[in-house]
Amino acid sequence: MKQQSIQISSNRRSRPKPRGRSPRRTLGSVPALGVLLAVMAGCGGGEQASTPAASGSAGGAATIDQIAAQRELTPDDVRAALLTYQPSGRIDDYVLFASGGHSGQVFVIGMPSMRLLRSIAVFTPEPWQGWGYGVGQDILEQGDVEGKPIRWGDTHHPALSETAGDYDGQWLFINDKANARIAVIDLRDFETKQIIKNPIALNDHGGTMVTPNTDYVIEGGQYATPLGWSYAPLSEYNESYRGMVTFWKFDREKGRIDPQRSFALELPPYWQDIFDAGKLVSEGWVFGNSINTELATGGIESGNAPFEAGASQRDADYLHIIDLKKAEMVFAAGKFEKVKDFPVISLQTCIDEGILFFAPEPKSPHGVDVAPKGDLIVVSGKLDPHVTIYSFEKIKKAIADKKWEPEQYGVPVLDLDAVVEARVEVGLGPLHTQFDDKGYAYTSLFLDTQVTRWTLGGDYSKLHPESAWTVAGKINVHYNVGHIATAEGDTVSPDGRYMVSMNKWSVDRFFTPGPLLPQNFQLIDIAQEGDKMQLLYDMPVGVGEPHYAQIIKADKLKPWNVYPQVGWDPHSQQVKADAPTAGKERIERDGNTVNVYMTAVRSHYNPEHVEVNEGDHVVWHITNVDRAQDATHGFAIPVYDINLSLEPGETATFEFTADQPGVFTYYCTEFCSALHLEMTGYLLVKPSQTALAQ
Amino acid sequence: MKQQSIQISSNRRSRPKPRGRSPRRTLGSVPALGVLLAVMAGCGGGEQASTPAASGSAGGAATIDQIAAQRELTPDDVRAALLTYQPSGRIDDYVLFASGGHSGQVFVIGMPSMRLLRSIAVFTPEPWQGWGYGVGQDILEQGDVEGKPIRWGDTHHPALSETAGDYDGQWLFINDKANARIAVIDLRDFETKQIIKNPIALNDHGGTMVTPNTDYVIEGGQYATPLGWSYAPLSEYNESYRGMVTFWKFDREKGRIDPQRSFALELPPYWQDIFDAGKLVSEGWVFGNSINTELATGGIESGNAPFEAGASQRDADYLHIIDLKKAEMVFAAGKFEKVKDFPVISLQTCIDEGILFFAPEPKSPHGVDVAPKGDLIVVSGKLDPHVTIYSFEKIKKAIADKKWEPEQYGVPVLDLDAVVEARVEVGLGPLHTQFDDKGYAYTSLFLDTQVTRWTLGGDYSKLHPESAWTVAGKINVHYNVGHIATAEGDTVSPDGRYMVSMNKWSVDRFFTPGPLLPQNFQLIDIAQEGDKMQLLYDMPVGVGEPHYAQIIKADKLKPWNVYPQVGWDPHSQQVKADAPTAGKERIERDGNTVNVYMTAVRSHYNPEHVEVNEGDHVVWHITNVDRAQDATHGFAIPVYDINLSLEPGETATFEFTADQPGVFTYYCTEFCSALHLEMTGYLLVKPSQTALAQ
Repeated sequence: MKQQSIQISSNRRSRPKPRGRSPRRTLGSVPALGVLLAVMAGCGGGEQASTPAASGSAGGAATIDQIAAQRELTPDDVRAALLTYQPSGRIDDYVLFASGGHSGQVFVIGMPSMRLLRSIAVFTPEPWQGWGYGVGQDILEQGDVEGKPIRWGDTHHPALSETAGDYDGQWLFINDKANARIAVIDLRDFETKQIIKNPIALNDHGGTMVTPNTDYVIEGGQYATPLGWSYAPLSEYNESYRGMVTFWKFDREKGRIDPQRSFALELPPYWQDIFDAGKLVSEGWVFGNSINTELATGGIESGNAPFEAGASQRDADYLHIIDLKKAEMVFAAGKFEKVKDFPVISLQTCIDEGILFFAPEPKSPHGVDVAPKGDLIVVSGKLDPHVTIYSFEKIKKAIADKKWEPEQYGVPVLDLDAVVEARVEVGLGPLHTQFDDKGYAYTSLFLDTQVTRWTLGGDYSKLHPESAWTVAGKINVHYNVGHIATAEGDTVSPDGRYMVSMNKWSVDRFFTPGPLLPQNFQLIDIAQEGDKMQLLYDMPVGVGEPHYAQIIKADKLKPWNVYPQVGWDPHSQQVKADAPTAGKERIERDGNTVNVYMTAVRSHYNPEHVEVNEGDHVVWHITNVDRAQDATHGFAIPVYDINLSLEPGETATFEFTADQPGVFTYYCTEFCSALHLEMTGYLLVKPSQTALAQ
Repeated sequence: MKQQSIQISSNRRSRPKPRGRSPRRTLGSVPALGVLLAVMAGCGGGEQASTPAASGSAGGAATIDQIAAQRELTPDDVRAALLTYQPSGRIDDYVLFASGGHSGQVFVIGMPSMRLLRSIAVFTPEPWQGWGYGVGQDILEQGDVEGKPIRWGDTHHPALSETAGDYDGQWLFINDKANARIAVIDLRDFETKQIIKNPIALNDHGGTMVTPNTDYVIEGGQYATPLGWSYAPLSEYNESYRGMVTFWKFDREKGRIDPQRSFALELPPYWQDIFDAGKLVSEGWVFGNSINTELATGGIESGNAPFEAGASQRDADYLHIIDLKKAEMVFAAGKFEKVKDFPVISLQTCIDEGILFFAPEPKSPHGVDVAPKGDLIVVSGKLDPHVTIYSFEKIKKAIADKKWEPEQYGVPVLDLDAVVEARVEVGLGPLHTQFDDKGYAYTSLFLDTQVTRWTLGGDYSKLHPESAWTVAGKINVHYNVGHIATAEGDTVSPDGRYMVSMNKWSVDRFFTPGPLLPQNFQLIDIAQEGDKMQLLYDMPVGVGEPHYAQIIKADKLKPWNVYPQVGWDPHSQQVKADAPTAGKERIERDGNTVNVYMTAVRSHYNPEHVEVNEGDHVVWHITNVDRAQDATHGFAIPVYDINLSLEPGETATFEFTADQPGVFTYYCTEFCSALHLEMTGYLLVKPSQTALAQ
């Protein structure tokens, strides 16, 4: 570190400050510049010819070198600052979709600036998005269990839809570990369109990886229960409790999971953990891992080994190898049972039909990751310092050669030596592996608090200078790293360039906002070869506890700026026939039901007075007829617990019973214009005595 | 801009990468360095001797100048990047508390890095914080209206507690505009401790500014209704509808608002907007502004002028001037009426006792801000290009001299010329004013999309080189600026240095995440004099819609790292006598009630099995007995909609009726250790037939 030197200097003092709009971001495109001087002359960010956001004056009696000295920035810091800073209006190159853990939501983050662009409300009501406070209840209620509302989730593994194994930017899927549910998000408007409850499983973990053309969304269980979670004592664990994996058929045209074409496999009561879909040469196959093949049932209070010990006794657990094409055929042939009216291919049928195979894997793994070409499957057992790399070719051969022994439930266990391609000692507590474009794999190390970069062999060897199956470098990260994400790192064509280490702890990294700390996403530069990796940015995540993320090139996403037409219903993604529009506002009474047809526009509602009688059932239709991007209106009614977020063109309908008499001032909750505070109106609920007296 | 040049170069190639822990952040304190070379040699961030977070290798085949050129960064960009970048482990200097708008929450943001450190759940249930999903319901229910649950809020104006007019870092208050509620947050653990519903008002806007020693939290209404929002037709608006301001007495020792010592003033049915407390020379007085002194009631659907037009007809509205000391005495003397059992000093008493005065103010203002010395009150009417500065000395004299005329409700309106100190033409659409340490004031301009820096006169003149009452500079910001915040800018001793422009729109600033866009907080450097202001950073806010913020020096806050003792109840902020502790775990049945006493520790619960009968009432007590900072455990029960966040030492109790039979796997929702996935257990709910058969 001593050999380097940097001179940064500046002669910029006492220069005139431009008045009014700064021209900085309004220039046209600038040719690629090799010489800093030319750039520094004042023409950055060329592609943003837009809006009045501006730099203002440069300020800066202090020179750049003074700032670096005063702020004690190292050369690495300066490099990191300049690699991550996005000037006003510069759009991020990548978008990271992170699960929100037990917030129940999904977070959208721009990279490399690591700025949280928005939360997407999924399983948890969220009023800023108007989710579950008048609108969205129909979708939230899809996730209820026998009428019991569940109004949060534990989102774990988001999955972007894929075409030919590459992200296509159209849909996002996310699971709720706590209640075994899956949600579908439309990436045109970044809103949740469907929630589906798994009828046979109580919790899931191995969701929501998709097959290479998004034919199926995969949902693997976690903690075993009797299928359908019906009561059985723990003494009957081995016989009555079961694992499962469900293949949800995704109907791309409808944008919905189709339960009628979906099915599950019954699995032994091991804790299935994570699944990944095969691709290219392994397309049509699915791989999963498992914990607790010991069949431990805990019970520390009775002197038993607690789960943490009981589930960690054997040296190996089982890699699950599933022939999905065969499973589809068996399902199509009707060879399934029904549990809670949902088709389940029994474990015995899975065995008999050659759907399910196991291979030993290092114990208690938390990652099974298929390499970009689909040829290798990487498993890391968190209590083994190696990653174990399986060859799909060898797996197929071992199956063909019947190189197996059945385990206790009769599932064929392939011979380990016959299927392993390589092992690499990466360090302590390996968890999760991602890939890049240079033939490197990256594995997070929970105990070493590092990420190891190691080399793939075979066809990948020509992409990197090192020997195959060796450690190329390591980088320290912060405590409790779980998953990692590289740019498009689980597709058939990873981008390399960036990796995010998703650290669960953040002690000492940020100001401490009380005993509950944020998580810490660390952005790491992986653009260079060998051991050259640099920590660029620490991003606190203080709105949830992300587990997993996927990173997509921003230009693959084609979000709507506004809804396509006025009167658009985001649930059906089409114009609603009876949506109120300008000039069609009215109030209609039909017995005790009052239909309100209202429009919102900067800066008033029409009507501004709505009078009903106590006890009336009110059906309120409202359309935001504004068409300018960002001209969102809110709509709140006090006491009645209603708040909507109406994006330009959006229509919504909500209902309530006017059971509280009085005067209620509805108003716009989104600061929409200079006269936003004046965007209000009166709901008058006449007390029933008055109503009766008339 | 053409005159400047910067040379940035670096000779750092092919240098050895340190293996394992990087020494970079583990060196001791570094002496202040004037020479960049020394800093660049690799020893920044001296004060952080901590944890294994590390920089890894420097990477960097590209030199600094190449990066700047490739990324098209201007000198301003480089300066901004270096002024805002926080290397790993560098703690931010300031903490910004922003309201979350209709998210119902409060956001905590580090400055200058503009990173969201955490959300504080207030009015809206939030499962990551375990707020309202088993714990917190008791506080949320304090905000219910006659049994009607309200599970969101529209937070507007956070207020830090003050001692002698300066932030003391102990408490934070926040209002819910939608339902006229106030919440109290304890800044030891950053959690909400109290929600209070205003019994006479339906909505509020002028909250939650505090008096200089936090004796009172101020809550002004907004849209007029009959007090207690009982029914009255709009035709009776002038006679029956009223405004109000409530003074909530804060009991600092108990950490709670004391409704028994709180009271309200009845006001004319103008829309009171924002209030600010006097300080120093004006301590004991309170100032507010108003909209719609026209008494418009809207009704566009009937051919009336909509509110946006009807409420903007007169040239002036009324600055409200309240003698709080006198109001306190009148309240103590029992000269009040009761509305919904809450003491209200009638408008006539306010007039008769000399509590309430008005002064004309430019129409439709959205800001009333008391200058640091308490001597000046700045009002900006959003339809007038000037700010109007009132002298408190002159106000007192005008009152003493009875220089007034009564308005329609009899309130004395002070003579404008007698009370105005100055007017400054700042630009179009002025909204909100903040102050710094150099005698400057800053006013946001909604229509001009700028912030104007202007000079205060009088005693403030010696702090700045410009003449008094002149515009010193302007800076462009992004669309729809609302409030602004300067560092400690509404206290008796503003810090200057930073300003945040809270822009409501962000079109073209960031990747577009669908039709609902984030807001945009723009950080602006105001450390230098005159017209030198620089935009440093654009921060998207995609989790809510902040309205107002306060910025406090980080070292004034003294948050707990962990709860003080094991078995700590955050609601009472003391140890709970019957909290489960290690060795005291048990399950006790009393008739149909089952009490579970459980502990959580990395990485198991005790007990791991809980068996109850269908229909049993279960009271579940759980303590996180871990003591390490950040060792939070979650606790979720599927289907039963329960999720807790238990910070180290925290105990909690929740109850439910076991109405769903079956097998339920409770588990830790916070990734707490390498064996976190094994932290689980079984709740078995025996079906009633089985139970009866025994």
